[in-house]
Amino acid sequence: MQISELSDRSGLTVQTIKFYIRQGLLPRGSAVSATRAEYGPAHLERLRLIGALREVAGLPVAAIRTIVTAVDDGGSGLHDLIGTAQHALGGAPAEGPRPGAVPPDPDLRAAREDVDALVRELGWRAAADAPARDLLAAAFVSLRRLGFPVTLADLRPYVRAAADVAEHEIARVDDAAPRARTVQSLLVSTVVYERVFTALHRLAQQDAAARRFAP
Amino acid sequence: MQISELSDRSGLTVQTIKFYIRQGLLPRGSAVSATRAEYGPAHLERLRLIGALREVAGLPVAAIRTIVTAVDDGGSGLHDLIGTAQHALGGAPAEGPRPGAVPPDPDLRAAREDVDALVRELGWRAAADAPARDLLAAAFVSLRRLGFPVTLADLRPYVRAAADVAEHEIARVDDAAPRARTVQSLLVSTVVYERVFTALHRLAQQDAAARRFAP
Repeated sequence: MQISELSDRSGLTVQTIKFYIRQGLLPRGSAVSATRAEYGPAHLERLRLIGALREVAGLPVAAIRTIVTAVDDGGSGLHDLIGTAQHALGGAPAEGPRPGAVPPDPDLRAAREDVDALVRELGWRAAADAPARDLLAAAFVSLRRLGFPVTLADLRPYVRAAADVAEHEIARVDDAAPRARTVQSLLVSTVVYERVFTALHRLAQQDAAARRFAP
Repeated sequence: MQISELSDRSGLTVQTIKFYIRQGLLPRGSAVSATRAEYGPAHLERLRLIGALREVAGLPVAAIRTIVTAVDDGGSGLHDLIGTAQHALGGAPAEGPRPGAVPPDPDLRAAREDVDALVRELGWRAAADAPARDLLAAAFVSLRRLGFPVTLADLRPYVRAAADVAEHEIARVDDAAPRARTVQSLLVSTVVYERVFTALHRLAQQDAAARRFAP
């Protein structure tokens, strides 16, 4: 298809598509003449991935480039790809330390050691530099400052809930699907379904409170 | 204790404490002379609640006033108090429609009807105007736009995880504890433990992917 059709089908303007090509997010089409290039379904799929990363995860162009480069690198396993994608996601929006920042705070460093001990105790295989470790450490620091010490017993229900949800998400990954589609659906699980969980959690809290306190 | 001791023990400056009194967040101390007032443990507890709401939940003064007014209103049940606190929390930070906003988007209106149907089907007792309903509807819209239709089967693991976690949180509420402490610990569950869940979810996803794809 020509760029105008790619624009119609993706809902993006021709300028935006050309911007993504210049930024190295989208491969060039195959040249059919000096002024015309031909685009295929892979381009459309890639634009959907970029759209998901920009609009839903709110990622900057550089982070998107990291992810699409990893998608295109056929040599890395799906497991590494998930690590790369999570790295690009970094902390949750507008909270927690940014990845790569050296924790300057001794409380945060101590909490980070607790997180590493927890992950070892759970026997979870997660990257040593996973940004989620810093996110968790920052939450531990908040809890302690508020006078809520964190014990393994307190964490148990959250650990179980997180593990059940993740197990379900990874189990439904289709081995045969294109890598871009797999990464997209895992990122959607990560970002949008975390919002789904948050909303359901609040509704479930109201329900549990109503059952206990307003029978 | 005098205001200087309240300042020492809360870690807040005297100016900040006086600001909270002027804003109606903290009751005045009992006057012991024309220029001195006496403060008690309830003032310290209240300052901890305000601190949690400001620093952890990032709430503005007006939202904090709504919550502390509800805490002080002995007539409302704990169940109503949770609803009020969730209302003050509104959407998750920097995402989702703000509470009270009329959804202008027909997709969002349709998604909101799906959310209401889901809550009815689950038999959950949650306020008809709970902001979490709008949060969930916004996530449904994102999923649909990305080409992931939302089915009850897809939601099941998240519903179960959210219900388990909420059940645990409400079960550990101590009836005999002061209302301010109960509200504080439920808000901490809501805000900080949602971050804990997010981080654990990402680590669990890496682990599940490693077990499936890098055995």
